[in-house]
Amino acid sequence: MNSESHGADIYGASEIFGINEDDIIDFSSNINPLGIPENVQEAIIRSVKYSNRYPDINSRELIKGLSNYEKVPENWIFCSNGAAEAIFRIALSIIPQNALLTSPTFSEYEQALKTVATNINYFALEEENDFKLTDNIINSIKIDTDIVFICNPNNPTGQIADKILLEKIISHCKLMNATIVIDECFMDFVEDKEKYSTIDLMEKYNNLIVLRAFTKIYAIPGIRLGYCMSSNTNTISFIKKSGPPWNVSTIAQAAGAASLKETDYVTKSVLYVKKQRQYLTDEMNKLNIKLYESYANYIFFKLTNNLNLYEELLKRGILIRSCSNYRNLNDSFYRIAVKSEFENKILIENLKEIIGNK
Amino acid sequence: MNSESHGADIYGASEIFGINEDDIIDFSSNINPLGIPENVQEAIIRSVKYSNRYPDINSRELIKGLSNYEKVPENWIFCSNGAAEAIFRIALSIIPQNALLTSPTFSEYEQALKTVATNINYFALEEENDFKLTDNIINSIKIDTDIVFICNPNNPTGQIADKILLEKIISHCKLMNATIVIDECFMDFVEDKEKYSTIDLMEKYNNLIVLRAFTKIYAIPGIRLGYCMSSNTNTISFIKKSGPPWNVSTIAQAAGAASLKETDYVTKSVLYVKKQRQYLTDEMNKLNIKLYESYANYIFFKLTNNLNLYEELLKRGILIRSCSNYRNLNDSFYRIAVKSEFENKILIENLKEIIGNK
Repeated sequence: MNSESHGADIYGASEIFGINEDDIIDFSSNINPLGIPENVQEAIIRSVKYSNRYPDINSRELIKGLSNYEKVPENWIFCSNGAAEAIFRIALSIIPQNALLTSPTFSEYEQALKTVATNINYFALEEENDFKLTDNIINSIKIDTDIVFICNPNNPTGQIADKILLEKIISHCKLMNATIVIDECFMDFVEDKEKYSTIDLMEKYNNLIVLRAFTKIYAIPGIRLGYCMSSNTNTISFIKKSGPPWNVSTIAQAAGAASLKETDYVTKSVLYVKKQRQYLTDEMNKLNIKLYESYANYIFFKLTNNLNLYEELLKRGILIRSCSNYRNLNDSFYRIAVKSEFENKILIENLKEIIGNK
Repeated sequence: MNSESHGADIYGASEIFGINEDDIIDFSSNINPLGIPENVQEAIIRSVKYSNRYPDINSRELIKGLSNYEKVPENWIFCSNGAAEAIFRIALSIIPQNALLTSPTFSEYEQALKTVATNINYFALEEENDFKLTDNIINSIKIDTDIVFICNPNNPTGQIADKILLEKIISHCKLMNATIVIDECFMDFVEDKEKYSTIDLMEKYNNLIVLRAFTKIYAIPGIRLGYCMSSNTNTISFIKKSGPPWNVSTIAQAAGAASLKETDYVTKSVLYVKKQRQYLTDEMNKLNIKLYESYANYIFFKLTNNLNLYEELLKRGILIRSCSNYRNLNDSFYRIAVKSEFENKILIENLKEIIGNK
């Protein structure tokens, strides 16, 4: 695995480029710049002394909290060791013959489906259309399609699909007897997320699985905590059986339960990210960079010159995500996280020096 | 999942029997009674502030430490979210058609193999022979056998197989083109473990996978950390691909790296457990309980009367492992952990009251 194959590999980048990992500003992983809420850190530390017990195999307290938070029954919820684990378990519990993915999108759907030898078809999002999802995808969902993954907002493009379009797709999947997984791991950064989140469609469509994570909004990627939900309790039960027990650590369960109380922190974070995203957008527009509209805490863009911005910035201790290894993209596409005001300013200064001079 | 299907479900037992989980003495999970070493607790707490980064996808520091500790190359090692995750990944990376398990043994091998629809055969360990593994198993490993799992010391029986017998089995597996997984998760509690551990056979046999865990000896089941090793680097590479990235949390990586320095603690623990195991053995012998010799930090025994010891003890706030749901066992078999002197005395007092009166 090279240092570009995922974002977030500061350890690999540090090794390859000989920079201490603490000296790297990581714009490659999309984590809330406000950091881990104080109360969550304290809950984690309190949970250490209980780590000499096995974790609750059923994450009872956490699921009770989530049920209350998401307003869905407890038996609709499965908690996982990061959202990535839920993706692999979904693949393994269904073992789909044929899948449909958009391109580009988050690479783990493909990785997970490959472990069960699924044949994968791709619906190419069009550059001419700013990589937006359209109802053209419906023509690609056929009677032999077993599963569809949609990332919303999409990673890495930042684009979002609204609920009307999504319901059309979900309903067509139902007709075709296909499961649809909507990955809403970045939804917490979206303003008016009620317009976009499909959680309230789960009751009507039992072929829908919604995926969420604590990782991004509560800034705890190192803790590993995600969850998926479906009104089809058989689906949830199969997902549970298709992997190891005790998959969610005692610490992750405590962190999750404490996170759900941080509603003010979430509101503050969404506003902060919005303001900083606007700052980055304005400054990058001045540099004539082609930006795509983002609804999440990251910005996707294209450089039309031949600059290797990934390497240029890494020489200066800034790690960004080259999107060259995404399907349907090439080495002119990049993704950056929206980080703190201080860090964003450093990025802009460096971009000005690198791009302003070309 | 009911409260008896695994040990260690104090949460389920607490719910069903209406006892606060903090008031339960848990003899059902086999964890080092000396608890989490101080330095490991401190390493965990120090790592919390780094949990706003993704974990190192390759667990580089931890694997470097393990390579040094186990004296095997780094690329022979894969770290997992508890040993249970490694078991599931092994099943998924091989997708064996036919497997051989001993009965009784740890139930996760069967669970993992079921997710990939493996046909499972069982080699019954004989009660007449105190459930010891013998070379009779070789007759059950045939040309169509793809994988064999051996737990050593065996869970729940506590019996151990020596390296001479194991090499015979490994070598026969090699001949039959079968992978053999030797689960040494309790090996750290064994005196003279060099006589039993098959780690030094890995170089000679590339069909051997050895499984280990930090869970039991360092008392961190709530943190989730195990690992598997093989000299076949393709095997390790397939295992790595057959599950989600970032499977080992930042906290688990820090806990693991710190644990490897705790050699004095391990020595002290082995002696402590030995002494306490002897105490429990002596006292239970006085009660005419049929005990099986144990090499690990738990004791397996049989009651010949019709007592439901699980329920009797739980009424008194003590949780033990009923072995009724293991293959080849029935509800007269039980397993208890070797715990602290204080807790062991409480158990013995209660056993005297319950069994002494019958």
